[in-house]
Amino acid sequence: MSIKRTVFFISDRTAITAETFGHSLLIQFDDVEFQKVTLPFIDTMWKAQDALEQINDAKEQTGQRPIIFSTIVNSQIRNLILSSEAAAVDLFETFIGPLEEELRVHPTLGGGSSHHTTAGEELDIRINAVNYALTNDDGITTKNYDKADVVLVGVSRTGKTPTCLYLGLQYGIFAANYPLTEEDLLIEYRKIPGVLQPYRDKLYGLTINPERLQKIRAARRPSGRYSSLEQCQQEISLAEFLYVSKNIPYLNITTMSIEEIAATVMHKSKLQRRIF
Amino acid sequence: MSIKRTVFFISDRTAITAETFGHSLLIQFDDVEFQKVTLPFIDTMWKAQDALEQINDAKEQTGQRPIIFSTIVNSQIRNLILSSEAAAVDLFETFIGPLEEELRVHPTLGGGSSHHTTAGEELDIRINAVNYALTNDDGITTKNYDKADVVLVGVSRTGKTPTCLYLGLQYGIFAANYPLTEEDLLIEYRKIPGVLQPYRDKLYGLTINPERLQKIRAARRPSGRYSSLEQCQQEISLAEFLYVSKNIPYLNITTMSIEEIAATVMHKSKLQRRIF
Repeated sequence: MSIKRTVFFISDRTAITAETFGHSLLIQFDDVEFQKVTLPFIDTMWKAQDALEQINDAKEQTGQRPIIFSTIVNSQIRNLILSSEAAAVDLFETFIGPLEEELRVHPTLGGGSSHHTTAGEELDIRINAVNYALTNDDGITTKNYDKADVVLVGVSRTGKTPTCLYLGLQYGIFAANYPLTEEDLLIEYRKIPGVLQPYRDKLYGLTINPERLQKIRAARRPSGRYSSLEQCQQEISLAEFLYVSKNIPYLNITTMSIEEIAATVMHKSKLQRRIF
Repeated sequence: MSIKRTVFFISDRTAITAETFGHSLLIQFDDVEFQKVTLPFIDTMWKAQDALEQINDAKEQTGQRPIIFSTIVNSQIRNLILSSEAAAVDLFETFIGPLEEELRVHPTLGGGSSHHTTAGEELDIRINAVNYALTNDDGITTKNYDKADVVLVGVSRTGKTPTCLYLGLQYGIFAANYPLTEEDLLIEYRKIPGVLQPYRDKLYGLTINPERLQKIRAARRPSGRYSSLEQCQQEISLAEFLYVSKNIPYLNITTMSIEEIAATVMHKSKLQRRIF
């Protein structure tokens, strides 16, 4: 008999933290089926009242207590939500008290003081970083590498573009990427391509298992040399040889998600987030 | 006297949840200055031992207990980290027990069972969604709107592109965007542009305060009609008029972050995440 439980992710902001953290807890319970509902921007008592009714309705309809993951900061709104008939995981309240004790200062609650970036500044940073990634994607131009925080290199279809975009959106990092073509790898054999040489400290290599690469390429272009296993094997081995011989840090992304690739690049290249 | 505390964000995966959640707690304490260190992929006892030393070193150097935000799943690794001299906020352990009790099933721990998407599948979904956003950006083409989950509309520089990319990367959503030009707004006055009409249920409008728009445009192109306040005011009022009269849901993004815009679009358009 499969058990089905309704789960609410509730926040006075985007609820992304509640969703991703809640999900990482829920996947630990394989035998339970979850019906997931996200309620973002619950930032007034009216909206909280609506949410409360939705939660209690779910209880009535399923006969089971819903589960809540909440990151609501405002205590009045939070208390109203927590008065529901659900089992609540409250991320904020659980930790703010102990943290207050540890820091020996009172929380200012609400945030938004002068030394934090505003939503407008954050938007600017993200838009600039995304525009940078788009403008400097796939070697379209190589003339802005002096402004790059990192330049990803790799053969075609190794996740360079989405990783650069993710670095821009999630971290505010300026990431360019340059595709290692067969010409780079064969004619310039064992050499870092000339345009990249002034920026070798910014380079980060991506690689992938040839079998996986072949599948990805075939989905895009089913026939021809580009998506043959032999071609994939050759390009990959030349690229990896370059990384190793020139001491370029690199990563095999075969089983990794974009976040994992991006977080690894951040960590290994010792880059600092510009935004949270 | 300003207090300075070292903060570690530690995870056996990307640490993005630890970072974003930790940050949302820390900004409540305005008077404290934090030195932030992220330690992702602490997934072996060796790495945990290194991390432990780094934490205890920070204690010694600053004379203050560091603060840890941890999302480590593996109990052996977690316990080693928690044996440090830091004040720990452990997201995982705090909640997994109560959740187990509530669900009355044991956690499988480690995750990755058959009915969850694998990292490879997630990567495919993200790459496809990002490629969709790039291919269908800024009205470049309008022929793939049947595959869109949502089509963002708005005048130039209202955050359409980064929002589409964010929807693709964070949620796996296929988001296209179409720029409302002066021609659309004036010549086709009061009409939804012809190419959009078959997809009117997928439309979501973005708008912004004219003063803010003027600043954003001027940063890109300092002089000329495009970045004059008058032009911005006219375009915005025509666009908003279109949204209201044609019943297109819309959002004023002036003070919002990209996540907030994306989360709002998800919620209001009742879209479901494809990935977590």
